[in-house]
Amino acid sequence: MNLYLLRHGIAVAGDEPGIESDGERPLTAKGIKRMRKAAKGLRRLGIVFDAILTSPLVRARQTAEIVAEVLSLESQLQEISGLAPESSVENLLFGLARFQNREHLLLVGHQPLLGDTAAFLLHGKDRPRLDIALKKGGICGIEIDSLPPGKPGTLQWLLAPKQLRLLATRAAKP
Amino acid sequence: MNLYLLRHGIAVAGDEPGIESDGERPLTAKGIKRMRKAAKGLRRLGIVFDAILTSPLVRARQTAEIVAEVLSLESQLQEISGLAPESSVENLLFGLARFQNREHLLLVGHQPLLGDTAAFLLHGKDRPRLDIALKKGGICGIEIDSLPPGKPGTLQWLLAPKQLRLLATRAAKP
Repeated sequence: MNLYLLRHGIAVAGDEPGIESDGERPLTAKGIKRMRKAAKGLRRLGIVFDAILTSPLVRARQTAEIVAEVLSLESQLQEISGLAPESSVENLLFGLARFQNREHLLLVGHQPLLGDTAAFLLHGKDRPRLDIALKKGGICGIEIDSLPPGKPGTLQWLLAPKQLRLLATRAAKP
Repeated sequence: MNLYLLRHGIAVAGDEPGIESDGERPLTAKGIKRMRKAAKGLRRLGIVFDAILTSPLVRARQTAEIVAEVLSLESQLQEISGLAPESSVENLLFGLARFQNREHLLLVGHQPLLGDTAAFLLHGKDRPRLDIALKKGGICGIEIDSLPPGKPGTLQWLLAPKQLRLLATRAAKP
């Protein structure tokens, strides 16, 4: 099966007026615009996600909603607490157990949890440091044998947000 | 600085008539066509390579030539023995020392040497197993602090050949 780890888009700062907690921070106007374009790029990859799972925080939830809308997969969207920033890799994998019969799971969340999860999936329990650039709006695809994984998975691809947006736009005439 | 590891395109089988050694295997017609398209996708990323270094084997040399031509960087192309299949990560890095003042180095070569090099650059000397899907015509970008690297680098992106080709083609109307 395949897990896809998508980091939320650009959100407003925590000290903006009206923002009372980190969990309430929404995407900025630019963040929404860029995420929408990135989602169109993601659509070109042709992956049919069985489920879109998101952290309950507003910036992640909004990111997941944009992707679900662009891919016409609104009915697949659900929040899981295992993707919240205060969660852990073990907690997240525990929460994913009920999705183990799915083929393509999209997870929308935060750093460093997503990067730690990628390192765990690629390395197993040893988990040496692995520095993957998962920028805001960036995504990677990891193939694993089962959930929880029995052996280290394979990093299939890692797309920077700019590359996702490029996929959505027309190439200039050669 | 940034190292980009590009695996050669699809080559003819070793038992084709007229092929006397592994090093002589050229790209297939399909391999050439796909590689040309992938190179156009690579061009959209806007990276100005300071040098395009290739394994001396025909299939790698041809791949590098296609990229150099599409990017108008023919003068930057050179063969280095450190990228040959029988080389090692240590030998390759030794051979790269004279390029240490460059910013963007494209390396065109073979598996498993490129994957081993990626694992070394991302992990340092410990080098646990790291499974990165570097398909024929696939490429990854790794940022390192110096050459030879003083600390583990960062995987910036990893593009499957199909994704490179998608970058080269027009998106369907949304």
